[in-house]
Amino acid sequence: MNTAPIGIFDSGIGGLTVARAIYERLPHESTVYFGDTARVPYGPKSPDTVRRYSLEILDWLLRQQVKAVVVACNTSTAHALDTLQQHSPVPVIGVIEPGARAAGSASTAGPIGVIGTAGTIASNAYARAIQRRRPEAAVEQRACPLFVPLVEEGWFDHPAAELIAREYLKPLREARVDTLVLGCTHYPLLKPLIQQVMGEEVRLIDSGEETAAVVERVLERGGLVAPQGTRVTHRFVVSDDEARFRQVGARFIGERLSRAEVVPLD
Amino acid sequence: MNTAPIGIFDSGIGGLTVARAIYERLPHESTVYFGDTARVPYGPKSPDTVRRYSLEILDWLLRQQVKAVVVACNTSTAHALDTLQQHSPVPVIGVIEPGARAAGSASTAGPIGVIGTAGTIASNAYARAIQRRRPEAAVEQRACPLFVPLVEEGWFDHPAAELIAREYLKPLREARVDTLVLGCTHYPLLKPLIQQVMGEEVRLIDSGEETAAVVERVLERGGLVAPQGTRVTHRFVVSDDEARFRQVGARFIGERLSRAEVVPLD
Repeated sequence: MNTAPIGIFDSGIGGLTVARAIYERLPHESTVYFGDTARVPYGPKSPDTVRRYSLEILDWLLRQQVKAVVVACNTSTAHALDTLQQHSPVPVIGVIEPGARAAGSASTAGPIGVIGTAGTIASNAYARAIQRRRPEAAVEQRACPLFVPLVEEGWFDHPAAELIAREYLKPLREARVDTLVLGCTHYPLLKPLIQQVMGEEVRLIDSGEETAAVVERVLERGGLVAPQGTRVTHRFVVSDDEARFRQVGARFIGERLSRAEVVPLD
Repeated sequence: MNTAPIGIFDSGIGGLTVARAIYERLPHESTVYFGDTARVPYGPKSPDTVRRYSLEILDWLLRQQVKAVVVACNTSTAHALDTLQQHSPVPVIGVIEPGARAAGSASTAGPIGVIGTAGTIASNAYARAIQRRRPEAAVEQRACPLFVPLVEEGWFDHPAAELIAREYLKPLREARVDTLVLGCTHYPLLKPLIQQVMGEEVRLIDSGEETAAVVERVLERGGLVAPQGTRVTHRFVVSDDEARFRQVGARFIGERLSRAEVVPLD
């Protein structure tokens, strides 16, 4: 038993969908969320820079006495997970492996589709993780750079969002993928639209939900589960622009996000 | 006469539209362009952070022996222009004042419209600059957060771009603005679409072109003009991710951008 919080970090706001999945799956666990809003986005930054930033955040989270760290950021997982695991005395869980594993299990007939930011798709991290488990699997990838700003605008079902989704998802429909990994933490908010465009028969994999399931197993195996009745707290910390984080973040996790502290890292 | 280059900087790639306007207006001038791609975007960052970054870039440009500095970034102009002018031994020219002045002169009947990123609009910098010259002017502002990613995707005339433009520009059409300031350096690439949605009678103000005209006057008054026949060079420097800068930047200024150096600042 361990009442320490789980540390969760992202380059900004998107990781809140992963945090939400953790709240839902693990309602007795406290969390500290760090959003590196001063340095968002990580996607266009070099792998070295992303590793350096991620290590700074890991150090900060460890000083908050977290019992595990969730890298709720695809770019950081792609470039920094190994380094973070080497440096951390507590378990570090990324979002790519859980999503890739779930996709490998769910897919039966067609190729597996992966959508994400330009950086995540260019890193090829999902395709590699999927093919490590299923070397024969065909993977169709597509970067969807406009999805993040659409989500941050709150245009989840705007006609423009549908046109954009139809354009981005067209090659995946033509390839007849049977499973589609939402490889960006913003995308779960577009799930109804993506499902509608892809068709009901395509299985959507939400990396955040899969990651929460892995976190649960890691806590159980490590004897790190918080006892029922623990007073649960959710702390939010950002490196800049607290007001925008609160405003946009409310779309992700609702009224839980009533305030955020600002801790500049650089 | 002075053959030293003009320094131009932006948080990233958008300032290339200002650079292009300078190349066209001042074909005998050399330039050094600095794009802070490691720390883009500046919009969501706090004014203090933006000032600190801008001063670092100013110092770097001064070490390149530039004869003038153009702040080709609306956020940096809004938050840092005064500070930069106090610190700089050479003239520093921002993008807001030239655009605001041109709008004040062009507008006759209706209110003046201003579009920009969320950060620029929230700063109110254009409205203040317009009303300093024309205190009676009505100013209608609208943030258009999806325009930058649309430009970076190259979707200048995609049906989704038109839907998005119609939605963003609707309040400005309803307010019957007669002049519209493109208050973001990315927006000149959407000029044909914006003109079509606003109607041919609305005068669009390209802050980049207006800024180039101001740079010309400043060089002339300061005796800083390069003599005809000077060998012209255009140097491009970024703080990270040179490949993406070249790839997207080519949409802004074509084949001039064949290579960029990487100089990390932090």
